[in-house]
Amino acid sequence: MNLILVRRNEITYSSSAKSQARVLLSDRRADHIRQVHQPSLGDALKLGVISGEIFNAQVVGISEQGVALEWDSALGVPPPEALPVVLVLALPRPKMLRRILQSAASMGVKEIWLIHSYRVDKSYWSSPLLDYEALMMQLQLGLEQSGDTIMPTLHLRKRFKPFVEDELPALVAGRKAWVAHPYDAEKAPMPSDQPSLVAVGPEGGFITYEVSKLMDAGLNPLSLGQRILRVETAIPVVLTRLFP
Amino acid sequence: MNLILVRRNEITYSSSAKSQARVLLSDRRADHIRQVHQPSLGDALKLGVISGEIFNAQVVGISEQGVALEWDSALGVPPPEALPVVLVLALPRPKMLRRILQSAASMGVKEIWLIHSYRVDKSYWSSPLLDYEALMMQLQLGLEQSGDTIMPTLHLRKRFKPFVEDELPALVAGRKAWVAHPYDAEKAPMPSDQPSLVAVGPEGGFITYEVSKLMDAGLNPLSLGQRILRVETAIPVVLTRLFP
Repeated sequence: MNLILVRRNEITYSSSAKSQARVLLSDRRADHIRQVHQPSLGDALKLGVISGEIFNAQVVGISEQGVALEWDSALGVPPPEALPVVLVLALPRPKMLRRILQSAASMGVKEIWLIHSYRVDKSYWSSPLLDYEALMMQLQLGLEQSGDTIMPTLHLRKRFKPFVEDELPALVAGRKAWVAHPYDAEKAPMPSDQPSLVAVGPEGGFITYEVSKLMDAGLNPLSLGQRILRVETAIPVVLTRLFP
Repeated sequence: MNLILVRRNEITYSSSAKSQARVLLSDRRADHIRQVHQPSLGDALKLGVISGEIFNAQVVGISEQGVALEWDSALGVPPPEALPVVLVLALPRPKMLRRILQSAASMGVKEIWLIHSYRVDKSYWSSPLLDYEALMMQLQLGLEQSGDTIMPTLHLRKRFKPFVEDELPALVAGRKAWVAHPYDAEKAPMPSDQPSLVAVGPEGGFITYEVSKLMDAGLNPLSLGQRILRVETAIPVVLTRLFP
């Protein structure tokens, strides 16, 4: 937790000094601050307001009940730049999904679509780990790791064909769009900061039918080279290729 | 397991056709072939000889006892190119280490040094997961994933200072050498195919003293940008930056 994230509705403002903001934390964030940061009164911690700016907050209270932080809300800096990319991902094994969501969020991905694919085990869709709140928590952990405040949006689509035919073309419009495909011989694209969309298949890859449907929707094959990488490795690789 | 890896001493050669090679597998590789590949007799599977070439092998026997494969040892192709990089890594949490070694091996890293650092919990060094054979198995899993046959070498150094003072300078000689440092403002280097060395710190980073010792040994700071990434994400990112 390199950044303590707070929600706007947790913040109170001083009646005397209007820009003086304050929060009292008593949940896992307070535990983390006490156990990992172990601050003294007066120490500074990086604090981010979800969907907002980042501040140097001061520890003004530490007790069993919680940790109180104060900061000057006029002295914020913006969060790091987002990656202008839509990530379309064949639903990974739920245990891996958690780390993958954290990792993608930490790299600055702001829009993630989890979709079905032939090689995705159907049972994955009914895993308790796929609870929406639990997934959003993984994304928040990624923000806390990387020091970002902007929550990604997350969309789940249990059927491949309706998504690819009815929704994907609109997502592709105005973007460079790619499907990562290990076996394909084409060269990786030159890096660009253009709005992009990249689809990453399941372990074993998209099947031929799916690749052709994705290409019909406007995606181009993007080679990651001769090596076949696991999804959790392929995502940082493809994002770094596109946005070095 | 995108590649079935076999050792040279497992291979037998036909007495009539000298280039006809054969192996009988009865361990986890046989289980994997039966359960995941589910081949019929005569089907082809990719087979790699450790430290050697890659072949199209034919399934010539499937039984409870094992799986027999045959191939023409004159028709091999070389494994994918390695990354010309030495990876120096502060020992990660043992559970993560396994995935990190797999990931690094799958990307083509061939030399890994696991070292101590101030922010590495000393208990990590006595974890049973750190058994050398167990670690080498993780590297082999990375090769099987990515379709490579060349095992990385792995070195463990429990003391930071003797490693950095006595061994690191020789590793740096003839290489571009970097220490990944999230907070540093310098730009990432231009990609190159030059022999390189890159050091990646623990969660929380190398401490200032360690960074200065690494710089004394010839390493230059390499920024991964404003975001602080977990080690398992930072490694694919830094390797892709250096070798896109």
